[in-house]
Amino acid sequence: MGKYAIGLDYGTNSCRSLLVDLETGEELGSVVFDYPSGELGVLTDSKDPHVARQNPQDYLDGLEKIVTGAIAQAKEKRPDFQPSEVIGLGVDTTGSTPIPVDKSGTPLGLKPEFANNLNAMVWLWKDHTSHEEAARITEKAAELRPQFLAKCGGTYSSEWWWSKIWHCKNADPAVFDAAYSWVEHCDWLPAVLTGDTKPESIARGVCSAGHKAMYCEEWGGLPDKEFLAALDPGLADLRDRLYDKAVTSDTRAGGLCAEWAEKLGLPEGIAVAVGAFDAHMGAVGAGVKEGTLVKILGTSTCDITVSPTSKELADIPGVCGIVDGSVLSGAYGIEAGQSAVGDIFLWFVHNLVPDSYGATPGEKFAAMEEKLAALKPGESGLLALDWNNGNRTVLVDVRLTGLLLGQTLHTKAHEIYRALIEATAFGALTIINRMEEYGVHIMEVMNTGGLAVKNETLMQIYADILGRPLKVAASDQTCALGAAIFGAVSSGQVALEDVQTAVCKTREKVYQPILENQGIYADLFELYSTVHDAFGKADWSGKLNHVMKRLLDIRKQVHE
Amino acid sequence: MGKYAIGLDYGTNSCRSLLVDLETGEELGSVVFDYPSGELGVLTDSKDPHVARQNPQDYLDGLEKIVTGAIAQAKEKRPDFQPSEVIGLGVDTTGSTPIPVDKSGTPLGLKPEFANNLNAMVWLWKDHTSHEEAARITEKAAELRPQFLAKCGGTYSSEWWWSKIWHCKNADPAVFDAAYSWVEHCDWLPAVLTGDTKPESIARGVCSAGHKAMYCEEWGGLPDKEFLAALDPGLADLRDRLYDKAVTSDTRAGGLCAEWAEKLGLPEGIAVAVGAFDAHMGAVGAGVKEGTLVKILGTSTCDITVSPTSKELADIPGVCGIVDGSVLSGAYGIEAGQSAVGDIFLWFVHNLVPDSYGATPGEKFAAMEEKLAALKPGESGLLALDWNNGNRTVLVDVRLTGLLLGQTLHTKAHEIYRALIEATAFGALTIINRMEEYGVHIMEVMNTGGLAVKNETLMQIYADILGRPLKVAASDQTCALGAAIFGAVSSGQVALEDVQTAVCKTREKVYQPILENQGIYADLFELYSTVHDAFGKADWSGKLNHVMKRLLDIRKQVHE
Repeated sequence: MGKYAIGLDYGTNSCRSLLVDLETGEELGSVVFDYPSGELGVLTDSKDPHVARQNPQDYLDGLEKIVTGAIAQAKEKRPDFQPSEVIGLGVDTTGSTPIPVDKSGTPLGLKPEFANNLNAMVWLWKDHTSHEEAARITEKAAELRPQFLAKCGGTYSSEWWWSKIWHCKNADPAVFDAAYSWVEHCDWLPAVLTGDTKPESIARGVCSAGHKAMYCEEWGGLPDKEFLAALDPGLADLRDRLYDKAVTSDTRAGGLCAEWAEKLGLPEGIAVAVGAFDAHMGAVGAGVKEGTLVKILGTSTCDITVSPTSKELADIPGVCGIVDGSVLSGAYGIEAGQSAVGDIFLWFVHNLVPDSYGATPGEKFAAMEEKLAALKPGESGLLALDWNNGNRTVLVDVRLTGLLLGQTLHTKAHEIYRALIEATAFGALTIINRMEEYGVHIMEVMNTGGLAVKNETLMQIYADILGRPLKVAASDQTCALGAAIFGAVSSGQVALEDVQTAVCKTREKVYQPILENQGIYADLFELYSTVHDAFGKADWSGKLNHVMKRLLDIRKQVHE
Repeated sequence: MGKYAIGLDYGTNSCRSLLVDLETGEELGSVVFDYPSGELGVLTDSKDPHVARQNPQDYLDGLEKIVTGAIAQAKEKRPDFQPSEVIGLGVDTTGSTPIPVDKSGTPLGLKPEFANNLNAMVWLWKDHTSHEEAARITEKAAELRPQFLAKCGGTYSSEWWWSKIWHCKNADPAVFDAAYSWVEHCDWLPAVLTGDTKPESIARGVCSAGHKAMYCEEWGGLPDKEFLAALDPGLADLRDRLYDKAVTSDTRAGGLCAEWAEKLGLPEGIAVAVGAFDAHMGAVGAGVKEGTLVKILGTSTCDITVSPTSKELADIPGVCGIVDGSVLSGAYGIEAGQSAVGDIFLWFVHNLVPDSYGATPGEKFAAMEEKLAALKPGESGLLALDWNNGNRTVLVDVRLTGLLLGQTLHTKAHEIYRALIEATAFGALTIINRMEEYGVHIMEVMNTGGLAVKNETLMQIYADILGRPLKVAASDQTCALGAAIFGAVSSGQVALEDVQTAVCKTREKVYQPILENQGIYADLFELYSTVHDAFGKADWSGKLNHVMKRLLDIRKQVHE
């Protein structure tokens, strides 16, 4: 009887494996492979800062290394470990990260004739060369198919499938013409493992399809040809060579093929799950369920929850993705996020913190955190907006920027750092409030990612502002863990809820809101919301002349 | 025939002299005396940060040192210099800086029984213990005598005469009762020099009376007893022991008495001019005239111009002082200012500039100025409000704070420094625009103070934003020079215009606005004004959602 699964997590700069005991949750092996190509795995173009591509060969080279490495670690850690006890493999990747492929499903970038053409490589999610195409898709959809936009928060992004493919056609028609089809990275890798990458055979995951390719069963799958032709007849033609049906990740994409079974040292035929995006599988690895919001707290954040399909769920304005089955079968996956969180703190420490706090960014953070932890909410009199990188949810507007107000001649760097932390927490609360307004209730927040693990001060501020207990997932690799869970479940031998119960653990420390702080933060959040709406919404009207005075009043009241 | 005069400038931390040749403007002697008492000359109270007093003995000790020192320097520099050729002395001081005195005009603080009582000392302008009294005066005046408020910008301040005296009565009735009268520092020192300090004899300057004691001929001098009684009957009683008439500084307060002539080494009987505040005499020393705005650019700024009394002049809302004769006879003196300018830059460099710019504040400023001078207007995408210390003109509101917006994940410290410089310039333009709206036209701006002399980058940005040629006064001591001019003029031997023409020179470098920059700054000023009004005015209504986007557009346009 098998009792292990392997999750493979393909990130922007590296990929990693996780071999997990499905009964105890013990993590027996995990290996990281840094992509050797480009700058930290990203192929760039000195003439255009928007270009971000990847070399598909890196994925294949990494695949072998991380799986065999994890197996070797497991054997060392548990001498009686047998690879034959691995029942399945799951894969998550970044996205939307489409790959142009030929009729056999081989990425064009692996073919000698395209080896030096960036446009034939993998189009990484953060490639923004297609911002004009994205704007035109938004425009056309608003005009012809508003329902498409409603499902993705109102604005189609240059980070997504159709923008990138269309831009390839506009920028390099030869590559577009040579591409028989396009495949998401998260669908291509499972196909590789099953040994059949023919575009018609590849199982397509509903997570990537629904979030980025405007796939929805309501309107018959991918956008209709009439709409695509209105963008470009070439896209309408392409639709015939894509797919009609997308499936959830508890589905078996196929069995591990002989060739890869041999390379990886795993049994032939074990289940390979349909792939999905990292955040979505990460949410499963963190134990997402109805009422639990999983926050992946990193340089930016991804906020994911689920709502059972048995309950009616309206479109939630400004929430960029609601997709049936994108996280769990039988539930709408609801995805939101903040464009910058950790990135704002990193920007601040690198650019605006004097060395009196310490010589290195790490020392500066530590010294500031010690000082700001001693402050009461409202004590600095500061208020910030968390828009240094735009606002993903709920305004869906990249053309917004940061704001700080309340500074006097005595304001210190650590006070501003606290205001920035608070601003990101207010941004997070804005997302939760929007979900709740539309009937998705959030009882607890489960956190994962670097900040959740490392920054206790931040976590307490978040608990006080979000007004909910904050837990932290035990695993450091929730994405890979989620992928492993799907690998196991797709085998048909175990049920998802059972595996989640067994392997998704939380750390002992739970951050409980402090009542006194909650009261002050409620006042501050009202001010945040006013400034947020004033600068972020075209239909806002109101007053702002009370904002600075109210902050001074709160500061005074807190001091007393 | 005499041809010299001496100006005495009493500041917050020190006093200084200037001995000037009235025909050539040559400065022959200047000595600084640091007040020995308290912290840098200010008596403070560790239990109350609002307390700021001075020891009157410091004034007397300094008086002898700085005059004899200047004479000694003049003799060395010009061997044929004769003290008998000095025709007058003028004095300027900070203000409102009232002194409680006994019947003989002796400051209570000089009397043994009060030697250890801070309340018997000189109440320095920046003492803010009387903020509650100030608020009550504003309230009562709004109710009973709105015309009083109209002349001082709408809000009575804790930096001013009546607030301080009333607070003394409330906080320490024994001192109030022991004070036969109160005298402004700038009136008391000339009285000392004339040898008659009896309160009834002291010549009171209209500058301090009009600006701080709500003196105006329109309503018969000081506020009427009925109004004062509504505040406190004790203040109404005091009015009888103050003064009925205040005069301009071209008036002779008296002749130098034998005792002080002896101590200073000057001829007995030479003219001592009626005193005034430093900024007002500084404006005269910088060559203020109709159409010329003098800006004293320091930690805060003082903006002064004049408008001939022959022209009708309405109250200018938000401009804190319009007083007939406060600067020049026959003209309304118009005073405005910004609560913090250099102080904002100092706050920034001390608290938010990393050491990668340099090890010391001086190095950091220099490195940032080099980098920011290479930026184009609008290139940073930033916009700031200059309210870190409130807004003196035109909003007259201390309960306002700083604001910065437009920051991204790439914003650098020197870009923010530039935005702060621009914000102070936009604040300065707001003042000029308000004056012009009310018929006071400003053709050129004459600058003095540390920033004007030292910071060429700032001056060019100011010229571009203010849209006028910016000159810099040649003298480093425009306040003392103005005091010397009044010393000379009060002798009756020379005319003010003639002396100004002879001694008020400008530096060679004139900052001319650059047309291309002016255009961009006009756009940025529109955004500044919108945000300024939104956060500063109760009656504002409008939109702000275009602000960040417009800044991004301007940034893009500038980059192209």
